Amino acid sequence: MQKRRVTIALIAEEAGVSIPTVSKVINGRPEVAPETRQRVERLLHKHGYQRRTGQGDGPVGLIDLVFAEIESPWAMELIRGAEQAAHEADASVVISVLHTHAGPGRDWVDRIAARRTDGVIIIGSRLSARQSGQLTARSIPFVTVDPEGEPAPGVPSVGATNWNGGLAATRHLIELGHRRIGMIGGPADMLCSRARIDGYKAALETAGIPIDPELIRYGDFLVNSGHDHGHALLDLDDPPTAIFAGSDLQAFGVFEAARQRGLRVPDDLSVVGFDDLPLARSAWPPLTTVRQPLQEMAALATRMVLTIGRGGKPEPSRVELATDLMIRESTAPPRQR
Amino acid sequence: MQKRRVTIALIAEEAGVSIPTVSKVINGRPEVAPETRQRVERLLHKHGYQRRTGQGDGPVGLIDLVFAEIESPWAMELIRGAEQAAHEADASVVISVLHTHAGPGRDWVDRIAARRTDGVIIIGSRLSARQSGQLTARSIPFVTVDPEGEPAPGVPSVGATNWNGGLAATRHLIELGHRRIGMIGGPADMLCSRARIDGYKAALETAGIPIDPELIRYGDFLVNSGHDHGHALLDLDDPPTAIFAGSDLQAFGVFEAARQRGLRVPDDLSVVGFDDLPLARSAWPPLTTVRQPLQEMAALATRMVLTIGRGGKPEPSRVELATDLMIRESTAPPRQR
Repeated sequence: MQKRRVTIALIAEEAGVSIPTVSKVINGRPEVAPETRQRVERLLHKHGYQRRTGQGDGPVGLIDLVFAEIESPWAMELIRGAEQAAHEADASVVISVLHTHAGPGRDWVDRIAARRTDGVIIIGSRLSARQSGQLTARSIPFVTVDPEGEPAPGVPSVGATNWNGGLAATRHLIELGHRRIGMIGGPADMLCSRARIDGYKAALETAGIPIDPELIRYGDFLVNSGHDHGHALLDLDDPPTAIFAGSDLQAFGVFEAARQRGLRVPDDLSVVGFDDLPLARSAWPPLTTVRQPLQEMAALATRMVLTIGRGGKPEPSRVELATDLMIRESTAPPRQR
Repeated sequence: MQKRRVTIALIAEEAGVSIPTVSKVINGRPEVAPETRQRVERLLHKHGYQRRTGQGDGPVGLIDLVFAEIESPWAMELIRGAEQAAHEADASVVISVLHTHAGPGRDWVDRIAARRTDGVIIIGSRLSARQSGQLTARSIPFVTVDPEGEPAPGVPSVGATNWNGGLAATRHLIELGHRRIGMIGGPADMLCSRARIDGYKAALETAGIPIDPELIRYGDFLVNSGHDHGHALLDLDDPPTAIFAGSDLQAFGVFEAARQRGLRVPDDLSVVGFDDLPLARSAWPPLTTVRQPLQEMAALATRMVLTIGRGGKPEPSRVELATDLMIRESTAPPRQR
């Protein structure tokens, strides 16, 4: 009844290479020709090769947290959550910053394999089937958080209910009486941002308010982006009376733009953010925002990757945690014109 | 002319134990009796034992960043700086959070020694001579950043010119015409906070303004602390017309307290912060604050610890980087009463 155990010898035989060559690929060593490496990787992946746990293969006490960028206090919340969960498992968190949204490259994967890790959490990056394959071939457990593109099938992931968050934020503004509602999203190809924008559109459509493409802008998630797009929206002939920003930092940028134009928030302009960073509460005015549970998301991803590393399967393996609308003082009914 | 090389054999002989026992102590393994361990540690320290670089002892590509707490975006800036410098040396940054200001315990040191590291950067914690000795005995290079207590002699450290920062902030307020200036510091036993308060006192004294102990408060560096102590200061019979907060987050808390009392910043109350976090600029009003170069401090500490790991000696080994007063819109002359 038992399946034949996939061994290095089996892979080596099928690939027509020596056993040490297969070992080198698994351990991220550089001295293997590219085509050979690819052939071996494909076979490891196809056979679902698992490292044998034993001598020198126990946990190393390291979880790798891989960011595209760490410019925002948003990253801090994820680090806090992951560190807490890792700490409970006697592990520490390693920070890598890729400075690209294209996901980890082969060199990075080889370096991690050579140094060893108990698991990798990839945040806000695309992960192609080839990249998943490279991690799998080296027996590196991985989980994605807020994947930027559509994650490859079977890739475990943790996200937030971005669509619902976008819907709730926009409905709140509609209920206050707003009809001209601006939206500032993140990069157009980031799934979490698209979902927020789609939630915004769904709220407008179900309320019978036509969607005006002029009111939808794409930026990055930082303060300047909110500032610049905030001015652009307020420069329109028929400017919005409310702006839903895709991040708290963007919302702070919109605050700045409003002040520069002599507009008061929320009397002259309502603003909603997304994230609920600790600073949203002490901003002025305190920011109405969609809370995504960043610490919990990172803690869950950490526990999932540890489960995978122990040979288990996290259930469920593709999760979205609920967002919550936090109503504070940056939103009010529109001024009568 | 050459000094006799300190070997494990020499240490074992002098301690009256076996060579494997000395190895166990150096590698952080648990199976050694406490007194034996201490005797071996003392001898390793006394003889300045250095691990022989070679097989299995090359760099592992990990720098450990050890925080007491990571609740503030302040920690994010240090992580960014360390990650950048580590990246340039093909290393990654590991985050540990001790959840205490008492510095790393023996268990932590043993775990790090067993896992191996290229160096440890200890942030905002006391480091006793015993703790330094434990790190030295395991050949773990270390540097402290903003040490909470007086660092042990010879311990490399990186800080900011906190005293000068406190002086500059307070002088700026005096030059604007303020005489009643409140000060909110961090914990009374944190050296970086004491230095800021001493700079504040020096500015008052050299301007011939008597120091009023009622105006000096001790908190932690977070928002709530600024909020609570801000209210307490403004509750005084003769309240201050300006408050110098020991951190930007505290200053945001003072903003909040002022708003709750219907006071406008800076018209009714001037506020100065400390740190210059990225959000200080987009706060309302934009915060006048003392900039400490957090990213540069962490980057320098990282380069220093890598130098020590390669057997070098960083010159200089105890450094304070300059602070800068950033004048923005939260300070103005006091209202005439």
